[in-house]
Amino acid sequence: MDGSQNAIEIANAIRLGTVSALRVTEAALADIARHDGRYNSFTTVTAGRALQEAAAVDAARDRGERLPPLAGVPYAVKNLFDIAGLPTLAGAKINQSHAPASTDAQLVQAMQRAGAILLGALNMDEYAYGFTTENHHFGPTRNPHDPTRSAGGSSGGSAAAVAAGLVPLTLGSDTNGSVRVPSSMCGLFGLKPTYGALSLQGMFPFVHSFDHAGIFARSAQDLSLCFDVLQGNTSADSTPRLVSDTPRLARLGGYFEQGDAQAQAAVATVCKALQVTQVVELPEVARARSAAYLITASEGGNRHLTRLRMQAADFDPLTRPRLAAGTTLPAAWYLQAQRLRRWFFEQAMQVFASTDVLIAPATPCCAQPLGQEDMVINGNRMPLRPNMGMFTQPISFIGLPVVAVPVHLPGQLPIAVQLIGAPGKEAQLLQLAHHLQSLSVCQSPVVRN
Amino acid sequence: MDGSQNAIEIANAIRLGTVSALRVTEAALADIARHDGRYNSFTTVTAGRALQEAAAVDAARDRGERLPPLAGVPYAVKNLFDIAGLPTLAGAKINQSHAPASTDAQLVQAMQRAGAILLGALNMDEYAYGFTTENHHFGPTRNPHDPTRSAGGSSGGSAAAVAAGLVPLTLGSDTNGSVRVPSSMCGLFGLKPTYGALSLQGMFPFVHSFDHAGIFARSAQDLSLCFDVLQGNTSADSTPRLVSDTPRLARLGGYFEQGDAQAQAAVATVCKALQVTQVVELPEVARARSAAYLITASEGGNRHLTRLRMQAADFDPLTRPRLAAGTTLPAAWYLQAQRLRRWFFEQAMQVFASTDVLIAPATPCCAQPLGQEDMVINGNRMPLRPNMGMFTQPISFIGLPVVAVPVHLPGQLPIAVQLIGAPGKEAQLLQLAHHLQSLSVCQSPVVRN
Repeated sequence: MDGSQNAIEIANAIRLGTVSALRVTEAALADIARHDGRYNSFTTVTAGRALQEAAAVDAARDRGERLPPLAGVPYAVKNLFDIAGLPTLAGAKINQSHAPASTDAQLVQAMQRAGAILLGALNMDEYAYGFTTENHHFGPTRNPHDPTRSAGGSSGGSAAAVAAGLVPLTLGSDTNGSVRVPSSMCGLFGLKPTYGALSLQGMFPFVHSFDHAGIFARSAQDLSLCFDVLQGNTSADSTPRLVSDTPRLARLGGYFEQGDAQAQAAVATVCKALQVTQVVELPEVARARSAAYLITASEGGNRHLTRLRMQAADFDPLTRPRLAAGTTLPAAWYLQAQRLRRWFFEQAMQVFASTDVLIAPATPCCAQPLGQEDMVINGNRMPLRPNMGMFTQPISFIGLPVVAVPVHLPGQLPIAVQLIGAPGKEAQLLQLAHHLQSLSVCQSPVVRN
Repeated sequence: MDGSQNAIEIANAIRLGTVSALRVTEAALADIARHDGRYNSFTTVTAGRALQEAAAVDAARDRGERLPPLAGVPYAVKNLFDIAGLPTLAGAKINQSHAPASTDAQLVQAMQRAGAILLGALNMDEYAYGFTTENHHFGPTRNPHDPTRSAGGSSGGSAAAVAAGLVPLTLGSDTNGSVRVPSSMCGLFGLKPTYGALSLQGMFPFVHSFDHAGIFARSAQDLSLCFDVLQGNTSADSTPRLVSDTPRLARLGGYFEQGDAQAQAAVATVCKALQVTQVVELPEVARARSAAYLITASEGGNRHLTRLRMQAADFDPLTRPRLAAGTTLPAAWYLQAQRLRRWFFEQAMQVFASTDVLIAPATPCCAQPLGQEDMVINGNRMPLRPNMGMFTQPISFIGLPVVAVPVHLPGQLPIAVQLIGAPGKEAQLLQLAHHLQSLSVCQSPVVRN
């Protein structure tokens, strides 16, 4: 038993005494040492801490204590989460010289209280500004389904580590799609909850208007359990909460139909399994995405202004010019974009008056080769790196909760579908993801190519 | 009995049947017709509506109904409040061609429910961007203490109408000082409540980060009663709410000691009456004021972007160049200013841990002649129009409640002192203002020069 089992399986085995937390941790550490050279998902392995945390779980069990819900479950976090004793890299060479964090990020503290074992910090696009984890300082993260391809980004390390079965759970962040895009590339279940639902304390910020913490797992139940833990719900168990009514489902049309054949087939597969025939549209999605860009560039540019002035040469070349350009945008544009955000949110809420869950592709295509500049979607050539987020950006722009569910069609790489709900409706989305998993429409097997 | 009596006196007389609402309204309308030519405080007199509202109050009394707290009390509003049937001018020639408002602003509705009689709309700086009410479209408002001088701004009409005894109560707005500066110039009690405490619905916006509605009166009791009414407190009576403990008072030192001899004498007078000896300082007040400028220009510029493009020639020359410049500010500066706002608020909250009320001048000097460009404060020559707000801007920047109390020193024009509290502590400030009034330290007589 190691990180290739699901979190709930590991927690149950440890609770039953079938295996010790120390044994699971040692096996997971050995797996990382053996396999992660191919994927480059970890930037730091916290073996000493992990072994201590595991020993503490085993000691508690030996004393007959009731174990918390994730006792002995290995996990890891995107390297923008504070880990006491380590500098918080946020994917940046510049941050290597920062003072070590004095305390863990709040969500890491919540995982520790729940008994989870921290194995390390995971690779990402510099300062979370990318969709491919092609990091020039720490190297690219490689997709376990095909190591010549990107694992997605910016939480690419978080996705690859789970897909490769190194850990069953990871934490990431999602500002414009940084949980959902790598979930799609790596074929995982991913949760980007409602804006504000999870604490960002102790996470290196990017865009305060739409920074979210998020979770990667290989099952909907693991996502549910971890989300409960992160919210501080101590009565957490592994069953997704029951939602009384059958949700009203609809596919998002218009703008969201621009994906390639595989993206459309994945949506169609989910819709067929759920017998969804209704199609609804959100207005002005392209404008909403533009506004998300303006806010991202403005807030990101402001965030890094001093570093851009003093240490420009130390930025990743994929990040620097976009942040620098962001510092020059007029405040009047930024404010207009924020005003559109309010309007677009109200439009979405009108759609939710008659629908509970919206179904849309997570990405316009599956994982593409590392280093590739362009992609062709339905005959249109476009820059690859920004456009991987074309379906995720308009949704995080207004903070709606999303569960990304993976679809593996025969002979193809995985791709994910977004289940999108009204604010606070995570339980409904997680239940639906669980249902799709029980129908075998959505699965997330461990892959080590 | 007309608008030169206080609101509570009028309401009591009408409740007792000493006078009818119609008689009070007719007298107030006659007073406006007779005297406002000198002050130019009203831009529209709503005589028809006023007479109807007054007749309704008298009819209710004749039916033996219990009258609401402001029944029969004349009042008027800054012309940025929606009044059903009138275009909402906001001091702008451009807005004269706007469609009439379909409903009253929410605060006007609250006043109507409380039985108050709306007499009209009041002059202001164009789009509320000024401290002098030198409006090129509708003419300057003149100070009842000395008609060659400014009544302050941007709610200059609201202040002059109360000072001249045309109405006992007016509503205004305060973004950077637009209630407190004219309270100081005209020697009135003025309330700028906590940011967010009063609805802005149906008010023409200026800077959403620190737009506040506010109130002018000639007594602290009238302010208290009106504030209760505007908050929808139906159990309102005329007694300022009792606050259990004696407030801990301190004078604001450092930056706030830059006023002229009269401003300093006014603060000293209040401090002596209240036996205040403690002095506290806020850090980085000048930076906070600069940040307030950046946010004002950015949000104001964005608000008026289309009008600046299409109708630049129709703006007031005192307003146009500042709004146009605001449209070019970088978003990175705006965001930094918002970040400083958060920090400065936290610094103020630390001061409030050991102090309840902070005492500071409202303006660096008393009312100055209309058309004057510069002023000399303690030997420093500076532009007059922006610097009238030097003591008010840093406080509204972080949304703290303020009651401005008037001090009339012998042989001098009035000037006001700010009583500044922690968020939500209006009752404490109003009680203190009432105490100063009962000590005869702060008084606001009707003046018709």
